[in-house]
Amino acid sequence: MTTYTSLRDTPPKVLRGWMDAAIEQAEKSWSEGGIPIGSVLVDEHGAVVARGHNMRVQSGDPTAHGEMSCIRSAGRRRDWSRLTLVSTLSPCSMCSGTASLLRFPRVLIGENRTFQGAEDWMRQHGAELLVMDDPRCIALMERMKREKPDLWAEDIGD
Amino acid sequence: MTTYTSLRDTPPKVLRGWMDAAIEQAEKSWSEGGIPIGSVLVDEHGAVVARGHNMRVQSGDPTAHGEMSCIRSAGRRRDWSRLTLVSTLSPCSMCSGTASLLRFPRVLIGENRTFQGAEDWMRQHGAELLVMDDPRCIALMERMKREKPDLWAEDIGD
Repeated sequence: MTTYTSLRDTPPKVLRGWMDAAIEQAEKSWSEGGIPIGSVLVDEHGAVVARGHNMRVQSGDPTAHGEMSCIRSAGRRRDWSRLTLVSTLSPCSMCSGTASLLRFPRVLIGENRTFQGAEDWMRQHGAELLVMDDPRCIALMERMKREKPDLWAEDIGD
Repeated sequence: MTTYTSLRDTPPKVLRGWMDAAIEQAEKSWSEGGIPIGSVLVDEHGAVVARGHNMRVQSGDPTAHGEMSCIRSAGRRRDWSRLTLVSTLSPCSMCSGTASLLRFPRVLIGENRTFQGAEDWMRQHGAELLVMDDPRCIALMERMKREKPDLWAEDIGD
C-alpha cells in the first residue's frame, strides 16, 4: 500500500484527486447559496477520511470555515499528525491556528492569489505546505468576490 | 453609559464580573462531564453578549473549545472589533487565530499557568491582553488535569 508522507514526493495526479474532492465540497456550498470554499482530510494512504465546506450561510456559524467544518466532521480522533489537510483556499488565521494545534504535517492549498492566510504560521509550526495555484479554485473565489462581495468581507472578518 | 475600551483602565470589580460569567460556563461544562473551560463575549458597555464552554465531550466536536463555542453562539455579526473576548484559560493557537481573524481588540484571560496559548500572536495582531491569574481558573484546570489527564491531552492536541 502506497504511503504519502511528503507532498513534494506525491504524484501530481494524486494531489489533483485530493483537490478535486475539496473543490467538489466548495461547489456544493456555492450551489446551496454559501461560500465556495471546501476542504478534505486525507490519511497517509491517500484516502479521504473527512469532508466539509464553509457553512456560514447555511448554519449561521461564523466559525464554520471549510477547514473547520471538515475537521468537525472528522470528530474526535488522535491521528491528526498523520493526516493531510486539503483546502481550496489558503487557510485564514483561525484555520491555520487550528492546523497548528492539531499538528497536521502537510497542508495542500488550492490557491493563495485571491487571499493569503497565515501560511508562515503553519510553516513555523513544522507543516509542509504546497500551493497548487489551481485555476478552478481561483475561479470559485473570483466569482464569489464579484457576485457576493459583502459575504466574503464578513467571512474574512473585514 | 460607561464605555470600556481598555482592560487596564477597567475597574477590577468589573473585570471580575466578566470572569465570573466565564467561570460559570466552565463549571457548567465540568458538571456535564466536559472540559472546564468557559468563555464570554462582552460589549463595550460591559454587557455579556454571548456565552459558551468547551463542548468536545458533549458534542464530539474537536473544534468546540470554550472560545469557539462562545463565538459560534454569537452568530453572524459585524461588531467583533468592539467586543472583549473573555476566557478562563489562555487561548490555544486555534482560538488565538480566531481572535486575530475577528480582530477582537481586547482579550481577558483567567490564567496562563496551567497552559499558555498563542498570546504573542494575538498581541502582534494588536489585541490588548490582560491575564488575571485567577486562582479559581487555575483550580478548575488542575482538577481536570488530575482527574482526566487523557481528555486534556486530547483537547490540546497532544
